[in-house]
Amino acid sequence: MADALRDLLDGRWAELRRSSIDLLAKLPAERAPDRAEVFEQLGVLAAGGYSRIGFPVEYGGRADIGGSVVAFEALGFGDLSLMVKAGVQWGLFGGAVQALGTREHHDRYLRAIMSLELPGCFAMTETGHGSDVQRLRTTATYDPETREFVVHTPDDEARKDYIGNAARDGRMAVVFAQLVTGGRSYGVHALLVPIRDESGAPLPGVRIENCGPKAGLNGVDNGRLWFDHVRVPRSALLDRYGAVSEDGRYSSPVEGDGRRFFTMLGTLVRGRISVAGGAGSATKRALTIAIRYGLARRQFTRPGSGEEVVVLDYLAHQRRLLPALATSYALHFAQEELVSALHDVSDDRAQRELESRAAGLKAVSTWHATATIQACREACGGAGYLSENLLADLKADTDVFTTFEGDNTVLLQLVAKGLLTSYRDHVGDLDPWGMARFVADQFVGVVIERTAARAIVDRLVGGSSDALRDRGWQLRQFEDRERHVLEGLARRLRAATEANAFDVFNAAQDHLLHAARTHVDRVVLEAFVAAVDRCGDEATTALLDKVCDLYALSVIEADRAWFLEHGRLTPARSKAVTQAVNELCAELRPHARRLVDAFGVPESRLAAPILG
Amino acid sequence: MADALRDLLDGRWAELRRSSIDLLAKLPAERAPDRAEVFEQLGVLAAGGYSRIGFPVEYGGRADIGGSVVAFEALGFGDLSLMVKAGVQWGLFGGAVQALGTREHHDRYLRAIMSLELPGCFAMTETGHGSDVQRLRTTATYDPETREFVVHTPDDEARKDYIGNAARDGRMAVVFAQLVTGGRSYGVHALLVPIRDESGAPLPGVRIENCGPKAGLNGVDNGRLWFDHVRVPRSALLDRYGAVSEDGRYSSPVEGDGRRFFTMLGTLVRGRISVAGGAGSATKRALTIAIRYGLARRQFTRPGSGEEVVVLDYLAHQRRLLPALATSYALHFAQEELVSALHDVSDDRAQRELESRAAGLKAVSTWHATATIQACREACGGAGYLSENLLADLKADTDVFTTFEGDNTVLLQLVAKGLLTSYRDHVGDLDPWGMARFVADQFVGVVIERTAARAIVDRLVGGSSDALRDRGWQLRQFEDRERHVLEGLARRLRAATEANAFDVFNAAQDHLLHAARTHVDRVVLEAFVAAVDRCGDEATTALLDKVCDLYALSVIEADRAWFLEHGRLTPARSKAVTQAVNELCAELRPHARRLVDAFGVPESRLAAPILG
Repeated sequence: MADALRDLLDGRWAELRRSSIDLLAKLPAERAPDRAEVFEQLGVLAAGGYSRIGFPVEYGGRADIGGSVVAFEALGFGDLSLMVKAGVQWGLFGGAVQALGTREHHDRYLRAIMSLELPGCFAMTETGHGSDVQRLRTTATYDPETREFVVHTPDDEARKDYIGNAARDGRMAVVFAQLVTGGRSYGVHALLVPIRDESGAPLPGVRIENCGPKAGLNGVDNGRLWFDHVRVPRSALLDRYGAVSEDGRYSSPVEGDGRRFFTMLGTLVRGRISVAGGAGSATKRALTIAIRYGLARRQFTRPGSGEEVVVLDYLAHQRRLLPALATSYALHFAQEELVSALHDVSDDRAQRELESRAAGLKAVSTWHATATIQACREACGGAGYLSENLLADLKADTDVFTTFEGDNTVLLQLVAKGLLTSYRDHVGDLDPWGMARFVADQFVGVVIERTAARAIVDRLVGGSSDALRDRGWQLRQFEDRERHVLEGLARRLRAATEANAFDVFNAAQDHLLHAARTHVDRVVLEAFVAAVDRCGDEATTALLDKVCDLYALSVIEADRAWFLEHGRLTPARSKAVTQAVNELCAELRPHARRLVDAFGVPESRLAAPILG
Repeated sequence: MADALRDLLDGRWAELRRSSIDLLAKLPAERAPDRAEVFEQLGVLAAGGYSRIGFPVEYGGRADIGGSVVAFEALGFGDLSLMVKAGVQWGLFGGAVQALGTREHHDRYLRAIMSLELPGCFAMTETGHGSDVQRLRTTATYDPETREFVVHTPDDEARKDYIGNAARDGRMAVVFAQLVTGGRSYGVHALLVPIRDESGAPLPGVRIENCGPKAGLNGVDNGRLWFDHVRVPRSALLDRYGAVSEDGRYSSPVEGDGRRFFTMLGTLVRGRISVAGGAGSATKRALTIAIRYGLARRQFTRPGSGEEVVVLDYLAHQRRLLPALATSYALHFAQEELVSALHDVSDDRAQRELESRAAGLKAVSTWHATATIQACREACGGAGYLSENLLADLKADTDVFTTFEGDNTVLLQLVAKGLLTSYRDHVGDLDPWGMARFVADQFVGVVIERTAARAIVDRLVGGSSDALRDRGWQLRQFEDRERHVLEGLARRLRAATEANAFDVFNAAQDHLLHAARTHVDRVVLEAFVAAVDRCGDEATTALLDKVCDLYALSVIEADRAWFLEHGRLTPARSKAVTQAVNELCAELRPHARRLVDAFGVPESRLAAPILG
């Protein structure tokens, strides 16, 4: 049964998932003490084939996009500095060259990127602009005389900031800059700019600064970059979505500067999906530690028996850990669905739906990681505060996940806007007034689009039981809430005029965030339902059914005020939801160890003294 | 007006509060790089008179108990390792000698403790027992032959763990151990045990180990202690509550081993109150940073104007920070009330009520710190993750506050038990069946006891308006909820039998925690109401009224499911609460800077590059 559970969790990329964990296990278990060692371990990953998974076959890769994310998730069981560093090198830097460059760039760089001969940076964020990257202020101005681009940082607000690989290892950077030619700006484009020579010294015109110590991820060399009229050849422009001819004429297959930029950004969606997966792995590791400790630790005597009580027998302790465990299961299956969608993406609309789902799942997964790892730390008391018990670094290293690769609050707003426009176009390009007009003209009501296991969900939703543990009832609640919240939002936004659109939107910002959240919750529940449905083992199915109940009911419990406010739950039934969550905690308590074991965190990454 | 606000916040110990901050400002602003430097700074505090505040006048102290907590709170604006180290030396170690020892101990040690000549440890927690300290397993066995106690660690589970000052600086430890004489155990008592010689080497029979790196507070030298039949003279026993005669006869002014132990613990309540205050200071510092940054940072363009929007103008950003700011105000005033109660405590019942309130406020304040500092970090994005911007250390250093000096979950259970027994005796001594009998026999319904500004609260509660912003309505909601939750809990517990008492209690654990929370919320609101009432300045009063509204309504909003479930709010009114919170955020936004400035965090502790 434990194996059936593990098999289900390992899913579509089971073999690759396991071999990646094996590769991880070849690295020393201790936290890498410094940046040099992290870089060295990156070399071990490259040598072990890790870096080849996502790149084209013609350059020695395996062209397995989904697999590249799954392998990244495996790294999330180990040192997260190494995981992030791998993400910077092969996901962001290599991914940008691959997605935004053309044949010439691929021929010239991809092999060296895979082998780590060419360590690089992804230099997008600036000190002054992180979320609103469309307004970056670095410029790349074409000079037809010399057939070069001049890359320039106008002031300190426009310096590149928090850039991984910049402070120590990067030789080259994909620099995002406003492209200017013939006196006109065409919006943000990416160029390859060498930043260090062979000896590691900054190249002329390039200034590099270390960001200094951080809350965590100190094995990653984040830095700042300034460019003082740095000249790069015309071929440095990654020109898949926008090219400049020798004489300075601009051309692009995508019309509109904003639309083009969001198309370019969209090709980089894998980064967000990877962060969601990495956060998931770190959360699983923390839960494994806290639950195993909770099963070993005893405190206070059970009257009569004289025996001390196992702390996971306390309802309060179960409440801290078991709903979070159920949510980790739910998010795991949603992540797998998302990775499959990335792997199989077909058309433009599917691409935009993918981007929206990636944004939503990244936000929900990383906030879940922050909250859950915190709960795990507290559940281990003073022992959880000691570095030797691993939770301290897990907390510190994952903290930034909620704001990097897109600030969660901004991402959830993108999700809601995508829903309101049914992914008909890039929402990043619509200002509040544009959104309001779009909604007024085209929004005719929410159509729930099932993303997973359509048939089984359809059948369950159509059921008639109103028992709290009836999956159909739960699914109907999730759908109904999503629809109602979103339609209410659309009504509010329709009221906007050109003059007050910003204020109307701003006043509805909490409503917008709630709409996004309800959508993500529903997508996640459907993914869980689909996974239970494809589980072949009877006993495992029965167990997963309870885990799924706990996920669904704890989501409803957390938002039960909404269900009460909107007449979806009576007061008595609302209290019954809380009672059902308590009962499910008690029912799952005996299976807690099995449930965390199935995550497959290697024992070498659980070497905490509190686990004995 | 800013000064009126500051004056109100500075409160009863205004002068001492300010002079303590001045003393803090004399220390270097950078984080102390290592333990040696923290120890050196501790010496600066001693020389500056900090350590004298709480000790008796006859030893050169100022006998100002409340003032000693206020001074500790001032340290919370600076390096928290220094704050905790000061708490260990003078609060816990010195405090235990003062509270549990008698004349001889005071004469011999207090001056050396104050001057830091004698650095010491408070060795209570063991690896195996943290929350249930009544079951510590270190023994102190009296040997009448030599008139000595033999202090012994039977196994690794009984080693002293996480002990501040143990790994590097401590020369002596107050060791809590089961006192055995004449073949009988009399429960946990405290003894003074020298652990290091003048050269700093461990004394014979004493083994010392460093706890190693921690998530934060790395300037504190936490360590582990083992005692191998270490002999100390009979006078080493801190014998205020339990003495052993030369021939080994035990005597005590307090009957019952449990009751005696909880009486001893009760005298150490200042530690918890100090942690609540220190957590409050750290939270104020984080809020000051995040709100000042939120007022300077701009992101995304306001349509039409072309100007970028100040991020604190976004509702979502206000929602993250302003209710937390209002709660910090509320907790500040509750803390001041609590410190006053500590300073003025009169009889046994007042003492138990104080202990309960300290437990509750410690739990609520430290969880507020963890959540708020996290929100502040996220509100500052990537910049918030860099150590140079101070939030990283604030997060890491405060994290352990939720579990040290009493695990918050355990503390809230003590609060609820205290309420159920009306502080009639030490609840720590009652097992579930004892509690159930007590409740069945003596609990006749909740009587709300006002802790602050009785007259004004009575008058307001008696009012008749039902407007959401009517203070009387808010107070009635808080009282009514507390009473109803507690009475429901009592009903559940009465149903217990001797056989199922543990299970009945365990099944009600979430109810118990909620009861405690509602009580603390009410006490905190009353303290806020009292503070607004004593504010002499009209404009300041008007502003504070809004801050108090935001506190009260955001508490109701967070628990509005309860109000809906129990028919206290209609769905429409519940939605109106959310709307009112949004409106209050908008109304307070222009005053945000003034509100954080009044906290009085010295500019030297706000030297973050993001604040320009």
